[in-house]
Amino acid sequence: MRTTISTCLAGLVLASMGVAMAGDTSREYIADQRPDGAALPFSNGVRAGDTLYVAGHLGLDPKTQMPPADAETEARLVMDGIKATVEKAGFRMDDLVSVTVFCPDLKQYDAFNRVYRGYFSGGFPARAFIGSGPLLRGARFEVLGVAVRTKAPAAGPAPAR
Amino acid sequence: MRTTISTCLAGLVLASMGVAMAGDTSREYIADQRPDGAALPFSNGVRAGDTLYVAGHLGLDPKTQMPPADAETEARLVMDGIKATVEKAGFRMDDLVSVTVFCPDLKQYDAFNRVYRGYFSGGFPARAFIGSGPLLRGARFEVLGVAVRTKAPAAGPAPAR
Amino acid sequence: MRTTISTCLAGLVLASMGVAMAGDTSREYIADQRPDGAALPFSNGVRAGDTLYVAGHLGLDPKTQMPPADAETEARLVMDGIKATVEKAGFRMDDLVSVTVFCPDLKQYDAFNRVYRGYFSGGFPARAFIGSGPLLRGARFEVLGVAVRTKAPAAGPAPAR
Repeated sequence: MRTTISTCLAGLVLASMGVAMAGDTSREYIADQRPDGAALPFSNGVRAGDTLYVAGHLGLDPKTQMPPADAETEARLVMDGIKATVEKAGFRMDDLVSVTVFCPDLKQYDAFNRVYRGYFSGGFPARAFIGSGPLLRGARFEVLGVAVRTKAPAAGPAPAR
Repeated sequence: MRTTISTCLAGLVLASMGVAMAGDTSREYIADQRPDGAALPFSNGVRAGDTLYVAGHLGLDPKTQMPPADAETEARLVMDGIKATVEKAGFRMDDLVSVTVFCPDLKQYDAFNRVYRGYFSGGFPARAFIGSGPLLRGARFEVLGVAVRTKAPAAGPAPAR
Repeated sequence: MRTTISTCLAGLVLASMGVAMAGDTSREYIADQRPDGAALPFSNGVRAGDTLYVAGHLGLDPKTQMPPADAETEARLVMDGIKATVEKAGFRMDDLVSVTVFCPDLKQYDAFNRVYRGYFSGGFPARAFIGSGPLLRGARFEVLGVAVRTKAPAAGPAPAR
């Protein structure tokens, strides 16, 4: 499900008149449909203008909906889920500026990092790795974040003179 | 207590000249006075431009300042507190884009969700529901979030030509 | 290491033409080099435009890289680290709008607050103080946050008429 409340058109009109906008105020919800059709009480991500708020993601086995046997496999499933949400919203992983990892067992720190590093090609997001209590479904990791689109200004290039 | 550092006027002047602003940079602190008059080391919310950062809220019984006996009552008190902060800042609950719930006992997940769903009429915020350690005052839930105002551009309509 | 992806020049050119920008989209990574030269999988902070995302900071003794014996000393080391990151990015502590503290032992709440209060001279950030599981290196506190620059509009003052 993708819903967009767009103010882009108004923005373009105003921009073409040389009038300032207070940022892009459009909004988009990135959400999954559950297999049984029930509506979940959260979106996987919500974009507000150029900022994407990424929900807490778990790394569950798609078939069993439970954590896989192996910690690195679970870390990869978590990060693949984050990547899917980020890309559905039209962002790239390198747009992530902040990531928080919750983990009930700190002994999984190195396994998580081995996997995590591979998802970024530029600078790393600011991150917190927090020892938590038990997570939903007995997950080893829950990961959330914020991405900000770094892009050229919305207005086009200067006309040739 | 509400304090506003406003740059709106300057913005209007500049906007009327056709000069771009780098967003609304005003700031506002939403804070309670404690019954005993002591100053708390946090605000309930801080607005920076169109973004409101909502502090961790507990759902304490207003008389006892302790969690109520029932989990759904506590969830309602938490969410009422969030709503009060959001609305004091001039936002609506549907402006929330991100919510994080900390909960020492995951068995309270369904009780929380039953209450939580009723506070939103549009898409749901991105959310993380994190198993935590014990919370202050023995609370079952602590909830924080971020809201972003989705509004029409600040500049007025185009003048007739 | 400081890396800047700057769109400022383009912004100035566009602003001087009276064309609106959708906010400042420059980005900067604030990161430390580890003593052994290994690259850490996180930045201490990432600035996106006027918003700085501050990573989870621990308050380790610089020599032992372990928590100091005293809780207030540890709180001071954490907050000094936050301050260093905030200032490296060109922000002030009073620009912090949101702070989250993770703490495995809630009995440290008062010790943390005694130290914390001294780092702010204006309104306090929205804050959550979360009882967590054990933290990396056995730390008593891990602190993260978001700062937003409150500043005059980027464009210069109106020319005299």
